[in-house]
Parts: sequence; C-alpha cells; structure tokens
Amino acid sequence: MIPTITAFAQSPDRGKGQARDMRVRWALEEVGQAYDVRLVSFTEMKQAAHRAVHPFGQIPTYEEGDLALFESGAIVLHIAQQHAGLLPDDPNARARAITWMFAALSTVEPPIVDLGVALLLERDQPWYAQRLPIVRDRIRVRLGELATRLGDADWLDGAFSAGDLMMVTVLRRLNISGLLDEYPSLAAYVARGEARPAFQRAFDAQLTVFNDASKRG
Amino acid sequence: MIPTITAFAQSPDRGKGQARDMRVRWALEEVGQAYDVRLVSFTEMKQAAHRAVHPFGQIPTYEEGDLALFESGAIVLHIAQQHAGLLPDDPNARARAITWMFAALSTVEPPIVDLGVALLLERDQPWYAQRLPIVRDRIRVRLGELATRLGDADWLDGAFSAGDLMMVTVLRRLNISGLLDEYPSLAAYVARGEARPAFQRAFDAQLTVFNDASKRG
Repeated sequence: MIPTITAFAQSPDRGKGQARDMRVRWALEEVGQAYDVRLVSFTEMKQAAHRAVHPFGQIPTYEEGDLALFESGAIVLHIAQQHAGLLPDDPNARARAITWMFAALSTVEPPIVDLGVALLLERDQPWYAQRLPIVRDRIRVRLGELATRLGDADWLDGAFSAGDLMMVTVLRRLNISGLLDEYPSLAAYVARGEARPAFQRAFDAQLTVFNDASKRG
Repeated sequence: MIPTITAFAQSPDRGKGQARDMRVRWALEEVGQAYDVRLVSFTEMKQAAHRAVHPFGQIPTYEEGDLALFESGAIVLHIAQQHAGLLPDDPNARARAITWMFAALSTVEPPIVDLGVALLLERDQPWYAQRLPIVRDRIRVRLGELATRLGDADWLDGAFSAGDLMMVTVLRRLNISGLLDEYPSLAAYVARGEARPAFQRAFDAQLTVFNDASKRG
C-alpha cells in the first residue's frame, strides 16, 4: 500500500526544502518506499477535514490504510521501524539513533524555530534588533555542543540514521542566518546529508511542487 | 539490571516536579521498574564526565549496562518499548501513541519553554512586558487545538499511554502561568494524570530529593 503524505501547496520557504514534509520525503526515499502527496493550502490546513488528521492544522501528515499520523518525528520513526535502512539492528544502537531524533526536535530545533518566529513575526516590534543577538546566542550554545559531540565523525553515532536525517533537516533551517558558517564541521555534516541521493530525490520532488505552484501563479 | 537516571541535585522548580527527570521517573513507576538516581549539580552537568552521556549538559540521562541515553522523550520511549503498560499492542494504536509523544515535545512544549525563558531570562529586558502577551497567545493557540482534540475523552487516544504521560508533564510546566485555568478540560486532564499512583510515587521521590537538599542547605 502506498502511503499518502501532505505538503504545502505553496511552501513559504519558496522551494528550499525547509518545510517539514522534506523530512518525510527524505525518509521514504532512503528506504525506497513510493508515496503519494496531497497538497493543502494554508486555508485548508486549518479546516476540520485536515484537523481530523492533524489536530494542530499543520503539515506533514501520513496516511496508510487505516493509519493516520502527524508530527514529522513520529512519521519518520514509523517509516524507520517499518523498513530497513534508517535504524541500526543492534537494540542499543537503535535506541541511541532514536535519541538523536528527539535531540534534534526537542533540544536543537526550538531555539532555531524561535529565531524563525522572530524574523517572521517580530520584525516590526520595537525590541526586534535588541533581542535578536540573544536568540542567536542561544542557538550558538546548542551548535557548539553538537559540534563537540560530532567531532570529526561523519554522522552522530556510527552509520547514517534517522537521527542524522532529522538533525540535518533541523540545521538546514539556519540557512539564511549565517550561523552554520561559524561551525564548519556542522556545515560539512549538513552538506554530507544533502549529498545523499535520497535527499536529492526528495528535494527535487518538493521543488517541483513549488515551481508548479509558481507557474500557476 | 536496575537502570540509573540522573536528576538535579537541587531542582530549580523547588520540588514541583517540573524538571524532565519527572517524566522518566513516572514512566518507570508506571511499568514497575526499580531505578537508581544519580544527582548532579549545575556545575557537574556542564563538565566532560556528564557531557559524555549528555552532549547538551542536561538531565535526565538513562544508563543501563552498556546503554547510555539522553533526552526524556527517547528515554520514555525506550522504557515503553521494553515493558508493557505505556504503549498499546495494536501497531496502529502504538504509532498514534508515539505521535502524541512527539506532539507534546515538538509542538506543544516549545512555546511553553519560550514563556519559561522569558520569565527567567528576559524579565529585566525593556521588551519583557510588551512581548509577554504575544508569547502567551502562542501557547493559547496550541492549548485550544489540544482541547478541541481531547474533547470530553479522558486521554488523547484510547487508554492512558506514554503520549499522555509526556503531554501531562509538558502542560504541568504552565502551573504558575494561569493559562491552564482557561482550558478546564485540559486542567482536568492534567489532574487525571497527577492522580495516577505511579505519578504520585514519582512526584514524592523527586520531592524527597529537593527536601533533603534544602535541609543540607
């Protein structure tokens, strides 16, 4: 059975692959699972039909027969548990890879989202310029700790895993901030993720959606 | 083998059970697994020995033989996968319960943490009073959506699960904000979680640590 995911009909990132459907697309490409995509507009996302699947009115969702999931972390974990290729077989290594998924979403992403919120929603506020360096410094703390742990390894814990997939997509959200450039080993880590053929297929797929939407106007 | 977790030697919440070790203690109590606790000071948390287990210098951690984990979400999921009692057996229901764990940590908790950061670190900033209502409104959006989904059910998806455990501990962080009082069904949901004997045993255990530390001065 081919699962169906949802994605933005018009992604606000203008095809940069920073929306959270990218994580799910990448995971599906890594394990070689075909998928269908249902595009939803910002209006549709907040309506009852979509909220029946995603209570918080967001994308992505994942539907497969009777199963309906939301939250990119939960969806990627589900895919990784159903197919080989994204989690090690050894139980301890598997638990550690899942730990990195949670670390990406729960420890590294929140200050990055906070920066995005500041840039998007607080730019006209009187405190914007004064608060921005504080928000950026909070991200630097996490990036420094992550760079220390990564060291000169290719991936966070042995072979590439769903933990790396999640961390790379989280770090990619820093693209316009310049912060990643301050941590060359993390920039190289992200580039390694982006160089994977599965990433590229997923990226091209979401870019096609954006380009098609732009053509329609 | 009895696992060892870490917790604050002196919790900044003054025994209210809002630190993230509470999630792990509660999960261990729900499944009836005994555990040891190693207390760490704020200084120790940031040192190399602790960072070898937790790269971001936080609590809790979980050590069991050769396995060392961090991130409360990953630890609770590990416990729930090793023991019966926190996840349904049906594969689809299981995936949905795990989805609620991610929703708690990745969608509901970040704006709540943002409020905590504002209260703790930005109180002396010139923008504090002006920005606070915006931060609180962002939390209200999530609470409204969560209350709509919960409806008049006891738990988020069928029987109590690790998803509820995580969501209740996230919502408990709102205690001093007054925000939970605006959503009576969510306040009742949190109270249902707190009434569970396993919650109470976990709460008492962390309170004892705080009281002992206070006596030592």
